[in-house]
Amino acid sequence: MSFRTLWFEDGALHLLDQRRLPARVEIVKARSAAEVAKAIREMVIRGAPAIGCAAAYGLALSADDFDDAREVLLAARPTAVNVRWALERLAKVTPRTFGALKAEADKVLEEDLAACRAIGRFGADLVPDGKGILTHCNAGGLATSGYGTALGVVRAAVASGKKCAVFADETRPWLQGARLTAWELLQDGIPVTLLPDVAAASLLDSGRIGCVVVGADRIARNGDTANKIGTYPLALAAHAAGVPFFVAAPTSTLDPRAATGADIPIEERAAAEVTHLAGQRVAAEGVEVFNPAFDVTPARYISAIVTERGVARPPYTETLTITGALR
Amino acid sequence: MSFRTLWFEDGALHLLDQRRLPARVEIVKARSAAEVAKAIREMVIRGAPAIGCAAAYGLALSADDFDDAREVLLAARPTAVNVRWALERLAKVTPRTFGALKAEADKVLEEDLAACRAIGRFGADLVPDGKGILTHCNAGGLATSGYGTALGVVRAAVASGKKCAVFADETRPWLQGARLTAWELLQDGIPVTLLPDVAAASLLDSGRIGCVVVGADRIARNGDTANKIGTYPLALAAHAAGVPFFVAAPTSTLDPRAATGADIPIEERAAAEVTHLAGQRVAAEGVEVFNPAFDVTPARYISAIVTERGVARPPYTETLTITGALR
Repeated sequence: MSFRTLWFEDGALHLLDQRRLPARVEIVKARSAAEVAKAIREMVIRGAPAIGCAAAYGLALSADDFDDAREVLLAARPTAVNVRWALERLAKVTPRTFGALKAEADKVLEEDLAACRAIGRFGADLVPDGKGILTHCNAGGLATSGYGTALGVVRAAVASGKKCAVFADETRPWLQGARLTAWELLQDGIPVTLLPDVAAASLLDSGRIGCVVVGADRIARNGDTANKIGTYPLALAAHAAGVPFFVAAPTSTLDPRAATGADIPIEERAAAEVTHLAGQRVAAEGVEVFNPAFDVTPARYISAIVTERGVARPPYTETLTITGALR
Repeated sequence: MSFRTLWFEDGALHLLDQRRLPARVEIVKARSAAEVAKAIREMVIRGAPAIGCAAAYGLALSADDFDDAREVLLAARPTAVNVRWALERLAKVTPRTFGALKAEADKVLEEDLAACRAIGRFGADLVPDGKGILTHCNAGGLATSGYGTALGVVRAAVASGKKCAVFADETRPWLQGARLTAWELLQDGIPVTLLPDVAAASLLDSGRIGCVVVGADRIARNGDTANKIGTYPLALAAHAAGVPFFVAAPTSTLDPRAATGADIPIEERAAAEVTHLAGQRVAAEGVEVFNPAFDVTPARYISAIVTERGVARPPYTETLTITGALR
């Protein structure tokens, strides 16, 4: 990959500012849990695995104030479970010094990168050769410590010599597909075709797509998967077109406390994400807004869940446990 | 309604410029078929019934050059069949003078308005009381000579005393929902909640929506319906949630030459509609774009088609004919 998403240097967590892409490549430095939490809330960094890594460094940075730091990081974004998972790992570290916690955060990041590469290898085998791959949002190197989950599958499939045209939903309202996925793939020399989310169903019906691959923010024990808003209708459209629908995510995204998708909290975001475009108001004054950031795709529409430990197939209540992917 | 979409005055067709809404209310004047065709292509005016009316006036304005005028108008936008329908009506007028053709165009417009009001009455009976109505794009007074088709159903349901919260998809990429439907309903004092298209499936699953009502650009003999891109995935989501899905359209939208949706041409529009927002580039340079303006919803996902002659239910190959809605 030709960019870095987050790294620790000179006493600060460095974050590639994803609000500025693709127009500008800028770095934000965070030196405390509060600053990391703010960066997560404001989407300087986003993507479940990436914010898990960022939260780990945030907790290390505020080691002297461990419990408060943990709370502020947990509250930053409620849907992705990776933040909780990373913080629970750090809570087991002794002593709770900056050095020990930072070393564990480094491990979280290194393991995430290794997990993405393993997900890529497992997922690449599932990708049909000579057909399109459709993805939603950005489950790429920008959403992880690097390489990506869904885009890790794309990278590994391309690296293995498979010919797959990549199609990216623009992903309203925040346009992660247009702003991030297109930029990220073109940086690596992988051509990509962008489409409005509403056009995905037509594209799937056209026969050009061999599979859909998306990431996940939280996976329940039965396989129900919370991911970026628009994933669920995409799964419905893939199902209607008979196209396989794959979720690619590290096991840190599995939530053993969630029996089904109904147990996953869904974050709602600001109305201005919908009423304004590029800082200009586009919707009439006085309109109300419904703007959930995530939706839940029922397990029955998911053909497989690709983790770093292997590929789980339905019924997920059994296979996620059997493969050891579920702790 | 507190605005006018199109009207003839002082030798010119006057068009409310829908590219400028909701920020500014501006009028564009067209004095020839070529100017009307340009206004249709550039979406000064849009919506299948409205562009049918506009095309009729355009042909009258270029009565001296009837055949060429007809071709340029027919080519303006390929998916909506109402333009062809209106031009075929004018082709039967004798003599082909401005006066006679303009009188027929007036009739096309008046009949469209009457059709919208009838669609509203028939459709209002189908709307569940006390639940939400979800619509896509703008099938309103702005898409017709006035009152609207889908929004005609909304207006009639509200006027009949039914309590229905209105929800509008923003409708990427051109944002007809955000820019036009929200403005149009608020102008009439009808509250509306705007959502990204990707959030419609979650909203439907929430149980808050009693029915979906959309317009149509062309309806095949079997009921397959071409409408704004995003209508088909919305129908899939309504089907999955068990919510009735209604198409509201005048019989001028029925195409007796199209046996199924496969016979309907789908217009593709410019890449810049997706790569740019409010004039600013948002997607990385070098990205390809897939930007179809319409999709086809298979008849099996459509609970009823509401026309000015009554409500057709499946199987549409029989009912559209039996109700006399199909010429």
